[in-house]
Amino acid sequence: MTGSLVVVGTGPGKADLMTPATRAALDRATDLVGYGPYLDRIPAGRADQCRHASDNRVELDRARHALELAASGRHVAVVSGGDPGVFAMAAAVFEAVEGGDPAWRTLDIKVEPGVTAMLAAAAEVGAPLGGDFCAISLSDNLKGWATIERRLAAAAEGDFVIALYNPASKARPYQLGQAFDLLRKLKEAATPVLFVRAAGTDEAKVVLTTLGAADASVADMRTLVIVGASTTRQVGRWIYTPRSERRT
Amino acid sequence: MTGSLVVVGTGPGKADLMTPATRAALDRATDLVGYGPYLDRIPAGRADQCRHASDNRVELDRARHALELAASGRHVAVVSGGDPGVFAMAAAVFEAVEGGDPAWRTLDIKVEPGVTAMLAAAAEVGAPLGGDFCAISLSDNLKGWATIERRLAAAAEGDFVIALYNPASKARPYQLGQAFDLLRKLKEAATPVLFVRAAGTDEAKVVLTTLGAADASVADMRTLVIVGASTTRQVGRWIYTPRSERRT
Repeated sequence: MTGSLVVVGTGPGKADLMTPATRAALDRATDLVGYGPYLDRIPAGRADQCRHASDNRVELDRARHALELAASGRHVAVVSGGDPGVFAMAAAVFEAVEGGDPAWRTLDIKVEPGVTAMLAAAAEVGAPLGGDFCAISLSDNLKGWATIERRLAAAAEGDFVIALYNPASKARPYQLGQAFDLLRKLKEAATPVLFVRAAGTDEAKVVLTTLGAADASVADMRTLVIVGASTTRQVGRWIYTPRSERRT
Repeated sequence: MTGSLVVVGTGPGKADLMTPATRAALDRATDLVGYGPYLDRIPAGRADQCRHASDNRVELDRARHALELAASGRHVAVVSGGDPGVFAMAAAVFEAVEGGDPAWRTLDIKVEPGVTAMLAAAAEVGAPLGGDFCAISLSDNLKGWATIERRLAAAAEGDFVIALYNPASKARPYQLGQAFDLLRKLKEAATPVLFVRAAGTDEAKVVLTTLGAADASVADMRTLVIVGASTTRQVGRWIYTPRSERRT
């Protein structure tokens, strides 16, 4: 019996931001494995399709479960939000492969790309990622805060636009404020800062402020924070980063 | 007469990686403006739809033309590959707005997110962007090489996974080699390097090597280069960056 596993992302939320390739992969699957709220975004599929919903923060258990199902001959789709390769399930699946049954290394495993949150957030406000940029997860569940601080400092040193994923949660209410404090020492107070909540959904909400004035408590789990580069600026109601270092 | 302008990305190439939202925006447009090869990816639309193909490297002229059409009452879609906000047309449109007719600031302008090349490239090989990462364009048409070197050094200092867009062109055959030389001084020789050509198309081709052995001449205009972080590694036939700093 030959199973398979595909890791997909639903995109930021609205159905029309999920790629047709992901839609087709979901239709082919006999089993969907994922965090409950992401599975809830997917309309009912074939009648014989099983849904295995799990809590957040158990990614590795979820990945192992999906690999076991695929090894037993099922056709499994592991469902993330956004793009599955960006702070999502694809890395967890390969971590589970590395630490698990050697037979899992020969499984048919694919990853389908999707629209990750920072692209949807950027599109809501203009083109803030128009220059070189970086993406940093502020969650320290899996890496030390010192590593996060080192990356924030390097991002400032390189004058990258900075997209901050997982800026806050109930368990981590203080980190975004600490990140802003660090960046304030390294970047201009007038640097644009964007809080984009629920980007790519009908409830999208944008707060534009500056690094000097940014209030970390504006962010929650559904917020993506973008901190501009030195060239990031406003024109009309849009924020963008020019491709050039110079004014055009 | 009220026109509009939407900036869209076709995704990496295959039709099933273009979002339905982008498909719908293209269907609504009276005018498509873009680089010829990107327009060629789009199946024929409504009979009254005009296509305005242009050369590459004239982004700002193309953006101005699109804004003029929208100001005259047309419904214009500006077409990029990938995601329009990442090294593509969205920033050029807002640059043109900033430097152009003040009336353009009141136009109905939207950006539709898409699947950018690094996400498609990552999906071809596993999950190399599974940790913190950055995206740098090696094109120095619009920024100085010193800025690019500063960003490469900062990316190495932060131990980011590095996605290199526009790694090579006929006009710029030497830059990727210079970038590798710089990174070799700052990162381990065993660091995985991926050349992913035509990611997200049926012609996708992957070359896996190491920073020590990487040959810049492997890259061309259709290649996306990914340089790993210190934790990026191989399992089975996949390359991934674990979410954690430690082995799980």
